[in-house]
Amino acid sequence: MRSSISLLTDFGTKDSFVGQMKGVILNINPEVNIVDLSHDITPFNIGEAALMIEKCHKYFPLGTIHVAVVDPGVGSKRRPIIVMNGDYFFVGPDNGVFSSVMESSEKVEVIHVTNNEFFLRKGSMTFQGRDVFAPVAAWLSKGETAFNFGKKIRDYHVLEMPVPTCDKDTARGEVISVDRFGNAVTNISLDCIERFITGRPINSLTVRIHDESIQVKRFYEEGRGEGLCALINSDAMLELFLYQGNASQTYRIGCGDLVSVMMS
Amino acid sequence: MRSSISLLTDFGTKDSFVGQMKGVILNINPEVNIVDLSHDITPFNIGEAALMIEKCHKYFPLGTIHVAVVDPGVGSKRRPIIVMNGDYFFVGPDNGVFSSVMESSEKVEVIHVTNNEFFLRKGSMTFQGRDVFAPVAAWLSKGETAFNFGKKIRDYHVLEMPVPTCDKDTARGEVISVDRFGNAVTNISLDCIERFITGRPINSLTVRIHDESIQVKRFYEEGRGEGLCALINSDAMLELFLYQGNASQTYRIGCGDLVSVMMS
Amino acid sequence: MRSSISLLTDFGTKDSFVGQMKGVILNINPEVNIVDLSHDITPFNIGEAALMIEKCHKYFPLGTIHVAVVDPGVGSKRRPIIVMNGDYFFVGPDNGVFSSVMESSEKVEVIHVTNNEFFLRKGSMTFQGRDVFAPVAAWLSKGETAFNFGKKIRDYHVLEMPVPTCDKDTARGEVISVDRFGNAVTNISLDCIERFITGRPINSLTVRIHDESIQVKRFYEEGRGEGLCALINSDAMLELFLYQGNASQTYRIGCGDLVSVMMS
Repeated sequence: MRSSISLLTDFGTKDSFVGQMKGVILNINPEVNIVDLSHDITPFNIGEAALMIEKCHKYFPLGTIHVAVVDPGVGSKRRPIIVMNGDYFFVGPDNGVFSSVMESSEKVEVIHVTNNEFFLRKGSMTFQGRDVFAPVAAWLSKGETAFNFGKKIRDYHVLEMPVPTCDKDTARGEVISVDRFGNAVTNISLDCIERFITGRPINSLTVRIHDESIQVKRFYEEGRGEGLCALINSDAMLELFLYQGNASQTYRIGCGDLVSVMMS
Repeated sequence: MRSSISLLTDFGTKDSFVGQMKGVILNINPEVNIVDLSHDITPFNIGEAALMIEKCHKYFPLGTIHVAVVDPGVGSKRRPIIVMNGDYFFVGPDNGVFSSVMESSEKVEVIHVTNNEFFLRKGSMTFQGRDVFAPVAAWLSKGETAFNFGKKIRDYHVLEMPVPTCDKDTARGEVISVDRFGNAVTNISLDCIERFITGRPINSLTVRIHDESIQVKRFYEEGRGEGLCALINSDAMLELFLYQGNASQTYRIGCGDLVSVMMS
Repeated sequence: MRSSISLLTDFGTKDSFVGQMKGVILNINPEVNIVDLSHDITPFNIGEAALMIEKCHKYFPLGTIHVAVVDPGVGSKRRPIIVMNGDYFFVGPDNGVFSSVMESSEKVEVIHVTNNEFFLRKGSMTFQGRDVFAPVAAWLSKGETAFNFGKKIRDYHVLEMPVPTCDKDTARGEVISVDRFGNAVTNISLDCIERFITGRPINSLTVRIHDESIQVKRFYEEGRGEGLCALINSDAMLELFLYQGNASQTYRIGCGDLVSVMMS
């Protein structure tokens, strides 16, 4: 079976960074699938990249190698790492970009990558994406054992993410991302809501944001002609939307805005 | 032979939608070629996506599966479909995005996809691109028969597109898209023009737009230093251009603007 | 081993151009890896594309076919060519886009592509990317001999690029590109600087731009809190940067700005 490497960066698609990484990978393993998760992460925004890894990684074939390069500390003492959770490999800087994987899995193992046999010869101080992460991912995709790249560490870096509070009749959280359509995604999960909705229909909930109360729909088209609405999105998170409009722009909703949800 | 799946969406490349779809496809068929047609369709613009499908699909290997997800009605009653024209498969919502294929082929067959054996388990109400279209396309690419996904329908949805009028000495149509270079593409085809040009050279035509008369060139560089010009573009359609400039911006030309062409 | 074709264009990702080219390639060789270098070259900017080819091509597996289509003269007399440097193939217009390859290699051979057996049937006057370059690249990837596409030429086109002056204690050059992060890349190479730094540390250099003197760091994070700095970037070129900021915007630095570097 062909193995897959996914790439997530803040490099954009205009410069030579992504092309160089793909060249390095194919030079080591021309049989691998290279898949772009995105190269449009906001420059230096580690949290945004961490969310993408959380949302996407588990849809890929077992054994896929997910590479994330959002790396303002490149060249300094921050360590290159491989993370393994039993199902997938993750390759990138130890700056928190794999936080969700580290926190959600019990059997996570983290390797500090030090074995420069696997690095690009004549590498640079400023582009480990090309010089370290790309070749390490390519060698992993050929079956090289992760423990050959370096030693296991336990003091790896985990981001502090905003945590929603879920009590017996209300959940309180915040907007954590806004997508291309202007939909505002919160950190309130369906799991959290299920603690108090207990089988009642989703439209028996009320969502509050900016002192407004809004209704919860099942899908976007149910919000036709109704202004700001909410739904449980495809990642099982509470999301605010405006049908065929841009909720974020129209209602000035952005990351960090407080949101609560309760029984009507 | 490796089979191919092309993807066309309005999802952009910053969010997790496209990455999730590619993961789902590779998880079912890691040997398939996944090709991005575009993810930059204007949000919710079904007509724009229909034009892209029309222009691109026939260049691909026979048997290619073209997936289009521009889908404001996701979750409502609009149906997921597979379209077959004898040469290609098309997978997406029944909202007109495959209109050109439905209208141009005599032996078109349309399947209403209902067999949820092939869907992603634990799917959502809001993202059939990932939960239905991606897995259906992946199973088709592995040789699954289209008739196993659901029953044939005849009342599928076709968009009403603006139709040019072609009489014995004039063709009248309109601008239907503007490309990255500012070139304004019309719905007047070379076929239509050939009814009256009858072998005479292309520069014996005059094009009228906004009360201006412009000349028809054979290729872009022939318009050097000449302001607004026209040519027959690589899709065999009449197109307005400004050599190394942006015709749409400079001459304020947009979709819907009326264009006619006649013998000089 | 699977062969690879890289694509570099100014077509953007919203229109049908790139999708059509990929379809044509896969129709001839469904086993090939197609890799996007970039489709976001500034429209008609041949020099920008030439820099990308220079930076990226050598990271790919030997034998990779690099296709570049930045081609304002399409349809006119400018010739389609194949360039070979012993390690890679390059396919595109003879307008200078492969200048760096032509100048840096001693054993370069250039073929004027004329054999229309290999072209797309029913091609156009305006899109050789799809009608000529894509099929020629696909046939090369299947092992077709370059000399079967046309005759060798020697009067191929090379761009005049700005050349830095390197004397015994100073190098003088200019900014030649600005990347997504606002980093300003110069045409002063590490090779040039090594003529006078002769083993002393990199921070013993001073860079001058806009009458300001700035320091040279080893990697980005060393410039934290220090305003405009310089370093040797991952392509071994002198680059100006602002740590986690945008040097080009903050200090109004653009292409053509003069830069010099000397011992402090």
